[in-house]
Amino acid sequence: MKDLRQQALDYHASPTPGKIAIAITTPAETSRDLALAYSPGVAEPCREIAQNPDDVYKYTSKGNTVAVISNGSAVLGLGNLGPMASKPVMEGKALLFKRFANIDSFDIEVKHKTTDEFINTVANIADSFGGINLEDIKAPECFAIEKALIERCKIPVFHDDQHGTAIVTAAGLINALEIQGKDIAQAKIVCLGAGAAAIACMELLIKCGVQREKIYMLDTKGVIHTRRDDLNEYKKLFANNTDKRTLSDAIDGADVFVGVSGPNLLSPELLNTMADKPIIFACSNPDPEIKPELALATRDDLIIATGRSDYPNQVNNVLCFPFIFRGALDVRARVINDEMKIAAVNAISQLARESVPAEVLAASGDDELVFGREYIIPKPMDPRLCSSIASAVAQAAIDSGVAGLPYPSNYHNSLITEIT
Amino acid sequence: MKDLRQQALDYHASPTPGKIAIAITTPAETSRDLALAYSPGVAEPCREIAQNPDDVYKYTSKGNTVAVISNGSAVLGLGNLGPMASKPVMEGKALLFKRFANIDSFDIEVKHKTTDEFINTVANIADSFGGINLEDIKAPECFAIEKALIERCKIPVFHDDQHGTAIVTAAGLINALEIQGKDIAQAKIVCLGAGAAAIACMELLIKCGVQREKIYMLDTKGVIHTRRDDLNEYKKLFANNTDKRTLSDAIDGADVFVGVSGPNLLSPELLNTMADKPIIFACSNPDPEIKPELALATRDDLIIATGRSDYPNQVNNVLCFPFIFRGALDVRARVINDEMKIAAVNAISQLARESVPAEVLAASGDDELVFGREYIIPKPMDPRLCSSIASAVAQAAIDSGVAGLPYPSNYHNSLITEIT
Repeated sequence: MKDLRQQALDYHASPTPGKIAIAITTPAETSRDLALAYSPGVAEPCREIAQNPDDVYKYTSKGNTVAVISNGSAVLGLGNLGPMASKPVMEGKALLFKRFANIDSFDIEVKHKTTDEFINTVANIADSFGGINLEDIKAPECFAIEKALIERCKIPVFHDDQHGTAIVTAAGLINALEIQGKDIAQAKIVCLGAGAAAIACMELLIKCGVQREKIYMLDTKGVIHTRRDDLNEYKKLFANNTDKRTLSDAIDGADVFVGVSGPNLLSPELLNTMADKPIIFACSNPDPEIKPELALATRDDLIIATGRSDYPNQVNNVLCFPFIFRGALDVRARVINDEMKIAAVNAISQLARESVPAEVLAASGDDELVFGREYIIPKPMDPRLCSSIASAVAQAAIDSGVAGLPYPSNYHNSLITEIT
Repeated sequence: MKDLRQQALDYHASPTPGKIAIAITTPAETSRDLALAYSPGVAEPCREIAQNPDDVYKYTSKGNTVAVISNGSAVLGLGNLGPMASKPVMEGKALLFKRFANIDSFDIEVKHKTTDEFINTVANIADSFGGINLEDIKAPECFAIEKALIERCKIPVFHDDQHGTAIVTAAGLINALEIQGKDIAQAKIVCLGAGAAAIACMELLIKCGVQREKIYMLDTKGVIHTRRDDLNEYKKLFANNTDKRTLSDAIDGADVFVGVSGPNLLSPELLNTMADKPIIFACSNPDPEIKPELALATRDDLIIATGRSDYPNQVNNVLCFPFIFRGALDVRARVINDEMKIAAVNAISQLARESVPAEVLAASGDDELVFGREYIIPKPMDPRLCSSIASAVAQAAIDSGVAGLPYPSNYHNSLITEIT
């Protein structure tokens, strides 16, 4: 049996290099076909679009296309590998968009010197696409990049490392709090890590009801507090007026631990100081802040989620990004706003509470999935995800006034016809 | 029967908007598949590429990808419609790349203010692709854009409106000269039009043996001559030291007329002043400089080619661009140089001189195709084009020292295994 490394390399090298290709969606065999697809016939949709710019959604693939764009400055957990070495991840993301939400996605890797140059480059090509998924861009630059591109582009721009992670974490955490009988407004939360995902998670949890002053965020120098003078503008929003300085100080009596940091940073001793019925999101990948078997051996009243597929409760961005874009594209949303993100959180939470039909168990390979400590988050292979999340997101876009003029959406997976 | 306009609009609107989509080339059904395609398996090719940048050709689709890039400043014959209205043409080009040469191609439309901004934008994203096909960019900016991008990119950059047209025109003209018994070095040529295609055609014909001083190029102000002071640097190269001022002056006694100008500009009276056995390339689209039936009614010793599929001898760029890129990609050429362009010219010329097998007649829908006045250029549907042209181009890249390290090329259509 080949090891994972060799299997992964072989997978990427064959049958052809890479994972995605182009497919032709219209007849293209005869001379007549080509006279419609290209000159002289193609002049007609060009003229229509020149007259009515919205017709680009009617006559081209723009409306179902999402560009996955990176500069390779924070590739997985591997660091700044640069644009070229990030390409397998970006093609992988494109593959997931197609596999889960029938979105046509391809990757663009950007070489640049300054942050402004990155922003200008992406803004100049943005009209080609229906949406932009930013990926693997390091903090704190990712915040300014996303903000500027949202302002400059007429299409949804979404940094998945921030918001995808935040949405799935919030969905799982809401369910875990419910199961543990805790009130989100009273929950004391320790967030180990202060990068893009950590900050986005905490911002979204606040929008879901967490009290900002009940959050203790830690970076490599310890607790982020109001007397530190080394904080960037993003961390400063989480500066807590507290005397706590270390993880040990902060975690004492905490209800929730969210780790987006590194392997084995949460010891059994620290875990034992948490409140009754604690909730652990140990999302460091591939090695979590504490292994589930160790955590559960330490105390049996906890709920633990990780980023791994080989334990229950996997926090996996693929639960969100294909479907939030599917919903956004289906109603041609101009942005992905907070209302749409919270709709996605609620749809994911809700799905885990519903009984799981046999065909879903078959698809996910489980014998049984019952809402509870070992099932707080839906499974990535659950085929109900697309319609549940995309339709909730599309409805939120309509309700919050960011949906565009709808066209007959004959390529869509989401149940736009069910939206009232 | 619907008219062409409505047929073309319907073709672009259904079954889904546009003409291209993404296809997944690897297994992507099970959790295990996805663990190889994305996290955690995808980290392995990332690490390999970080160590050895050339491995991006082994583990990603880069090596078979061509971006079709435009700013929409010269869309077909419709003028400056802008980036969005050019999108159907660019998607059409991508469709043709896939249909004819199995190249995975997608379109990017660039919004920009200055020429430098366009160049920087494209250069910053260029590493994502195996090649760049520039399209529908107006003259004279297209010359500086192509030159700068060739210098800055490590991949082939090819402005098809210039060189694709030039290569197919040169291939047809060489055959027409042969049939008419004329020596290319002695041919007197009138070129009506002085845009991107005209200048590229004449430059390539000179490389094929035409004498520069035997070319009379005309722009809207008449013959381009050495005493004019209104010429840009590109036209200036064709300033002829002559007293001829009008088309009537220039065409008197000419062997060849190349029109890349506008409809009906070559009258029967002018045609009658040309030398014996003249050659007419009336490439204005859709309406040629003179209609073939009028030209042939005026004199019966001529050969005429047009851009139209409903007459013999169609000058169609699709005879070149898919295959010159196929050859360039197959040997990972760093550029498409003159040697490769001339190899394409010769391969296209040669193919028209070969006897046409029955299956080729079936594919092109003709009863008979015999090298002669009505068959100087191969038919676009001739399935021999790909292997003939791509292998000649690949060999020329190797011989001229611009080929890169070859990888096992299991996605290729061109007969790379036949190259010595």
